[in-house]
Parts: sequence; structure tokens; C-alpha cells
Amino acid sequence: MSRQLRLGAFMRPTTIHTGAWRYPGAYPDANFNFAHLKRFAQTLERGRFDAFFMADHLAVLNMPLDALKHSHTVTSFEPLTLLPALAAVTERLGLIATASTTFDAPYHVARRFASLDHISGGRAGWNLVTTSNPDAALNFGLDEHVEHDERYRRAREFFDVVTGLWDSWADDAFIRDTETGTFFDPEKLHVLNYKSENFSVRGPLNIARPVQGWPVIVQAGSSEAGRQIAAETAEVVFTAQTLLADGKRFYADVKGRMEKLGRARDHMKILPAAFVVVGDTLEEALETRARLDTFVHYESGIASLSIALGHDVSGFDPDGPLPEIPETNASRTARQRVVEWAQRDGLTIRQLAQRIGGYSGLEMVGTAKMIADQMEQWLVEDGSDGFNVMFPYLPGGLDDFVEKVIPELQKRGLFRREYEGATLRENLGLPRPENRFFARVN
Amino acid sequence: MSRQLRLGAFMRPTTIHTGAWRYPGAYPDANFNFAHLKRFAQTLERGRFDAFFMADHLAVLNMPLDALKHSHTVTSFEPLTLLPALAAVTERLGLIATASTTFDAPYHVARRFASLDHISGGRAGWNLVTTSNPDAALNFGLDEHVEHDERYRRAREFFDVVTGLWDSWADDAFIRDTETGTFFDPEKLHVLNYKSENFSVRGPLNIARPVQGWPVIVQAGSSEAGRQIAAETAEVVFTAQTLLADGKRFYADVKGRMEKLGRARDHMKILPAAFVVVGDTLEEALETRARLDTFVHYESGIASLSIALGHDVSGFDPDGPLPEIPETNASRTARQRVVEWAQRDGLTIRQLAQRIGGYSGLEMVGTAKMIADQMEQWLVEDGSDGFNVMFPYLPGGLDDFVEKVIPELQKRGLFRREYEGATLRENLGLPRPENRFFARVN
Ligand SMILES: Cc1cc2nc3c(=O)[nH]c(=O)nc-3n(C[C@H](O)[C@H](O)[C@H](O)COP(=O)(O)O)c2cc1C
Ligand SMILES: Cc1cc2nc3c(=O)[nH]c(=O)nc-3n(C[C@H](O)[C@H](O)[C@H](O)COP(=O)(O)O)c2cc1C
Repeated sequence: MSRQLRLGAFMRPTTIHTGAWRYPGAYPDANFNFAHLKRFAQTLERGRFDAFFMADHLAVLNMPLDALKHSHTVTSFEPLTLLPALAAVTERLGLIATASTTFDAPYHVARRFASLDHISGGRAGWNLVTTSNPDAALNFGLDEHVEHDERYRRAREFFDVVTGLWDSWADDAFIRDTETGTFFDPEKLHVLNYKSENFSVRGPLNIARPVQGWPVIVQAGSSEAGRQIAAETAEVVFTAQTLLADGKRFYADVKGRMEKLGRARDHMKILPAAFVVVGDTLEEALETRARLDTFVHYESGIASLSIALGHDVSGFDPDGPLPEIPETNASRTARQRVVEWAQRDGLTIRQLAQRIGGYSGLEMVGTAKMIADQMEQWLVEDGSDGFNVMFPYLPGGLDDFVEKVIPELQKRGLFRREYEGATLRENLGLPRPENRFFARVN
Repeated sequence: MSRQLRLGAFMRPTTIHTGAWRYPGAYPDANFNFAHLKRFAQTLERGRFDAFFMADHLAVLNMPLDALKHSHTVTSFEPLTLLPALAAVTERLGLIATASTTFDAPYHVARRFASLDHISGGRAGWNLVTTSNPDAALNFGLDEHVEHDERYRRAREFFDVVTGLWDSWADDAFIRDTETGTFFDPEKLHVLNYKSENFSVRGPLNIARPVQGWPVIVQAGSSEAGRQIAAETAEVVFTAQTLLADGKRFYADVKGRMEKLGRARDHMKILPAAFVVVGDTLEEALETRARLDTFVHYESGIASLSIALGHDVSGFDPDGPLPEIPETNASRTARQRVVEWAQRDGLTIRQLAQRIGGYSGLEMVGTAKMIADQMEQWLVEDGSDGFNVMFPYLPGGLDDFVEKVIPELQKRGLFRREYEGATLRENLGLPRPENRFFARVN
């Protein structure tokens, strides 16, 4: 069997494109309505997706209200309450929730993910983030965000505490012998007693070891510190490379780091986010893509464009071309890309604003075959192990993906027709972590 | 219609009686297995129970391992992950989770309960506790538990912050006008900006106002400070009075306090915990009750008995009578009750240990008619507005209750045959809180 693609679904916000909720046939309340989310999860499972992924933010987007008010991303279910509900209405789909190591406590995080893992029969994953939105700090008693390096130092320790708590009980600690009345074997209980400057956590956890040993560990950092913690701990890595060449560099870097640490390359799946628009013809797909952008409100688009250029462009004629913009200290790469787009596609400021304000990462637009070609290329050229797919609008964009792209990938032997196992770990081909305090049971 | 009984089900631990997991026909893994919990919740809904209630503890029970190892209460699902999963497999049952104001952050608590309320279509309740188990402190970075009065001061403020966050959005803030592209009306968004010595929380919450306005507020404190916060904030109060006379005193006290604060008596339901063992005859019920106690392990029973007496009695002959015990500074009332039981029922030390170690609060043991009589008496004499029912073992004890006691209560017109409304609030007959920042929508 050829190497297999891994597919996650990026479901918070349900669709990243800020015009998506206005698309004809879309559910404007997709982010709000459990019945919709249940339908989406069941469709993903029918498509044999590896996992449903919920990003998370501990504040509303830090954007001016006049831009924010046009976006459907301002509100959402909370991941660790939504995913258990989805666990109850699915059988095999993995369920990855984001939780912050900066603004939560390890005992809570360990318990909740263990609980989700038990409820779902071993389908939980933890996207460990240090929290990107600086406004989160303001909701948790601070005046400003915790400094980047300190966040990552805390995150690394947080991981040790959480995994230590998951190992509180041996896998066979709970005997439940009704004859003798022994519920658990005290020899198979470990009290962590973790103490450092950052944390003091006694343990044990008041829930049995997760079904998967540990839920699958997911990471999405891209800085030096972020890559390093991924190499040390992560089993799935989400990234945001837009070009295959950059993807290959990132892939080689992170897999190289993990090999240096003695971990097998195969024990981590790197999944760039990919916005996929499928049509029966290329023209149809391009039309959908262009139409989506027309639903991005000008006010929110122009705010995003100004941020990307590092220059307020709201005063220019929206229907004219982009004028010469002075250099600023905004990201050169982002600025360069915008200017290139404007020139290449002859876009007006409005069109440019709507494109940037809608979605501006890696996209795959075309027929099922074209999309499968692109995915295959990333896979065979070691640009990724699969993708974290973003749908253009819901439910249509998701239905199209499952009905058109998935069969094409299956035909090529790149994607499963049936789930291989019962747990997320088994489906991703990841080993079950041993309990550091107790030898394996035979 | 006569006054209606309100019935909650005390489901964490699934059954409080420490011998229950060994009872013939019981599920020893009731606390562990989502399929069982789903069955229980669906049975409760068939019985038209108001709510499924999950107590919560942020540490394993503070008890010696040799006693603890016999108890099924050591592990459990975490409430805010279990209840969303149960929401997905029920339609009308209320879902009350415990969350601590001492060891969690208001932004998290507000979000998670709002999320549960949206997922369940308005069936969430929050049992606001300051955390009774002192060992919890050790899992959250402290060396000892926060002092009682300080816990309650923090709790009162925590409540203000959480309810303030729930009111971040007017009920009609989310317009989702696909025509104009306006997703929400910025005039209907309120930024809390709460600042005090204990909390600094900016807001707004990144989820819409809960379906119920606020989830139902539940309290279980019994101290002076506990009763006062209940009078100020609670809509359901759980208590643990064993005698009707004490129940009446508590009921009069707390309802009196709320009237002084200008709240209507009817806007709070007081529900003592009641352990109910039903049989087709009194003898059968008594036999079940006695048999349950035989499954309490002697080691765990004797530890509980020693605590109740304030004196180590493990050295005495288990099969002899209780000897004279010197006075200590343990609770006089508890001690007195144990000594009375021993004398009245002629119990050996073993039997006494098993009774105390099993369950020692309010119990109702008898036929469905006898139990309905007792419940009715508490209701008409203003001892309570209903009960938080504990089942002797699962699934049998719960099935018996729903098949025998519920129909008897319904026949008497004391309990609903159908749910009155869609939300927990509607079923309990509680008003929907107005948004403090936005006038009611007409
Ligand atoms: C696909 C993807 C998903 C992400 N999801 C989250 C998230 O849910 N919450 C969050 O705070 N940050 C999220 N991030 C941001 C990363 O956690 C990280 O902060 C960011 O990539 C910057 O990297 P650095 O922190 O290592 O500098 C995500 C990033 C990517 C690429
Ligand atoms: C029915 C009932 C349920 C309770 N559930 C919890 C709980 O889940 N978690 C907790 O920490 N305390 C719980 N308690 C304890 C109370 O929160 C409170 O700490 C205790 O009654 C002592 O009251 P005081 O704190 O006002 O002195 C419960 C009490 C009762 C009567």
C-alpha cells in the first residue's frame, strides 16, 4: 500500500472564509447550531476523515468592531463541550480540541481530555497551544500577553504535568473484583507530586488512564520554540505553509529535529491547512472561489488589507488599482505577496481587500482530479503527510469534498475506504504511549 | 394543580452507596462507561426527571488508600465533558454540572456553561461550589485549602463576573443578515471590563447569550455564608438534612433570606438528597437495604465509623457490640446518631461500620406508596420542594424508581406526566433572567 494521506477537517470557525456565511445555500448559523455541527461530523465520518479539529481562542478576534461585525467567527461553541456531544453521535471520527497551556490549569486539562477520551472510546486529541490572541490575557487577569519564550517554557512543563497525570493509574489498575470488594489495586496508583516554579500538582488524576494511553498530541507552533516543542512532543503538527517549497523546508526541519531526539519520523503527521474548492470543471471551481470573495464585506476586507500592507489604504478609491505603497516594518513577505497578486490578476483595491479578507493561505481550486494531484504531490515530495482541510462554505463545500475528492483519493490508493481501527491513534498509525510509571501489561 | 415535586438525580458518583458496585445485577463500571451513563440518562428522561446532577471533586477522596481501594467513587467522568455527550442523546432532561469558583477562571466557566446550554437547547445548570475537598488545593498550586470566608467572598464575585459575561450579547444581537453582510449588531455587544482585587476580566464572551439567558444557578452550601449566597443567587438548592424537622428549619431559613432580598420564594427549589430503596413490600425494601450494607468492605466502613465517632475503633471485636467511647471534639450530633443506631437496632461494630460506610443521610425505604407518602409530607410541610434522588444501585435501583415510584407520584398529581417546556428553567418554573445591559426584546 502506498503512503496514506491523513485528513483533518478544520472546523472552527466552521469555515475560515469570512464571506462563507453569506454564500447561497450556506447555513449562516453554522457556528451556532448543534444540529448543523452534528450533520457536518457525520458527513466527515462518512468521508472517513481522521479528525474533526476545533481551533480555539480565549477572546473575540482582536479587530475593530466595524470589521468584526461582518464576520461569523466571533462566536462559537467551546471545543471541550462540543466534542463530547459529537462523540455521542459518531463512531470513529477523531476529535481534536485546542486547549491553552497559558490560561488553564494542567489538572483541568488532563481530566477533561481523559474524560473526552473515555467518552469517545479513544478518539481524543489535544492541540496544545500557548494562545496566539494577545487579548486573551485581558480575560484572565493580566494586562498583557505572557512573553513568547516564557509561554513556551511553561507549555513544555505543562505537557509533562498533564502526561504525568494521565499516567496516574496503570492500565490495569481497576480490578473491580466484586468477590473480594477490591475496586482498584493501590500498587497501580502513582502520585505525581510535581513541584517546580511554575507548577505544584500532587495528583493522582481522579479518572482512569485514557483509552489511548494519552490522547493524540497536536501542535501548531511555527517559531523556533514552537518547532522544538513539536519535535519533542507532537504526533500531529498543523501548519500554514502556502507554497510547496516552504512546506518541504518546514517538513524537513521538524522531522529532522524529531529524529535527532530519537523519535521515528513516522510518529508525527504534518498537516498544512488547505482551503479546498472543488467543481465539476476548473471554471466552476474558480467561479465559486471568486463568488465567495464578493461576500466579504468591504469594511472587513480593507482592514485586513491594511494590516497585510502595513499601511492604511482605506482612503484610496476602492475601484481603482493599488497605488505605490511606502515601505513599512510590516512583514515583507506578506506585503510582497499582496502586491504580486494585485499585479498578476489585475485586481482593484476592493477585489484585493475581499481576497485578503476572505482567506489568504494555501488553496486548492479545481476538479477532484486536480485537487488529488496537488495533494499527492505534497505527499510524495515530502511537503506533508496530509492536510487539515478547510471548506469554502457549509454544508455544500464539505458535501462536495466528500462526494468528489475523497473517492478520487481512494481510487488512487491514497486514502482509506474504511477506518483501520477504533481509536484516533490507531487510525493515524501512531503508537500507544507506555505508562512511564508502570511496565506494560502483557 | 397541587404543588409539584421537583426531582433531580444525584449521579456522581452514579450511586453514593460504597457497596453498590458489588450488588448482584449492578454495573461495577457504572462510573466509567459512557454506554451505561447514556442508558441511565434516557431512563431518567423516561421518568420525566427534572435533571441529571453531577457533583464534582478536584481530587480523589481524601481517605486512606486501604479504605479508598474498595470504593467505586475514586474515578468518574468530568461533568462538563460528560453532560454535553448526554445532551446529544436526550431531549428534555436538565443537565447540572458542578464547577468550582475557587479553582477555575470565570471566563472558562461562563463559556463552558453557555456552550452546554446552546448544545442542549437550554438545559444547563451550574452547581456553584467553593470546593469541599481540601486536597483539591494540592492539585492547583496551593499548599492548603483557601480559607472558608475568603472562598465565599471570591464565589460571590465570581458569580457576578460569570453572569456579566453571559450578558455580553443581547438576545437579539446576532442578526446574520446575508443581504447587508452584517453578522451582529455592535450596539448589542457589551464589554464587561470587570476589575477588582480578585478578578480582572475584560470580556466580551465569545459565545452568544445562553438559550436560558443564564443556565439555572444551583448551590449546595450549608454554612452561614453558604446559605446567604444561595439566598442571593440560587434557583435550586441541594441540601443534606436527614430529619424533616431540620429540613423545615433550613427551608424556612433560606426562603426567608431570599424574601428579605426581594426575591419570590417560588424562584428557588430546595432539594434535599434522598437515598430511595423501593420494594414491592416493605420487607423486600429493607432486605435490599440490609444486603447493600453487606457489600461495604469492612476496612472502608471502619474508617468511616472511626471518623464519625472521633475515635479509632478498629481495634475492637468487629462482631461485638459498640463499647462505651470517650467524648472527643468530633461532631456531637454525628456521634450521638451512631450510638443511637447501634442501640436501637442492636448492631455489631461490623454492621454499624457497614451502615456508616455505605450511606448515612436521609433515606426512604419501603413500597412506592410509602415513599410517595414521605415525599409528599416533606413537600406539604415545607420541608422541601422535591428531592435530589440517590439510587441504591444501577441500573436496577433507578429502573425500580422510574417504574414504581414515579407512577405513584403522578397518580397523586404531585409529578408531571410530560415535560412542561423545552428548557430546564421552563420545567422548573423559573423565570428567564433579563440581560442587565440590554432591555428585554418584545
Ligand atoms: C492550523 C493552525 C491552527 C492553529 N490553531 C490555533 C488555535 O486554535 N489557538 C491558538 O491560540 N493558536 C492557534 N494557532 C497558532 C499557533 O498556535 C501559533 O501560535 C502560531 O502558529 C505562531 O507560532 P509561534 O507561537 O510558535 O510563534 C494555529 C496555527 C495553525 C497553523
Ligand atoms: C447534595 C450536595 C451536593 C454537593 N456537591 C458538591 C460538589 O459537587 N462539590 C463540592 O465541592 N461540594 C459539594 N457539596 C458541598 C457543598 O458545596 C458545601 O461545601 C458543603 O455543603 C458545606 O457547606 P459550606 O461550604 O457552606 O460550609 C455538596 C453538598 C450537598 C449537600
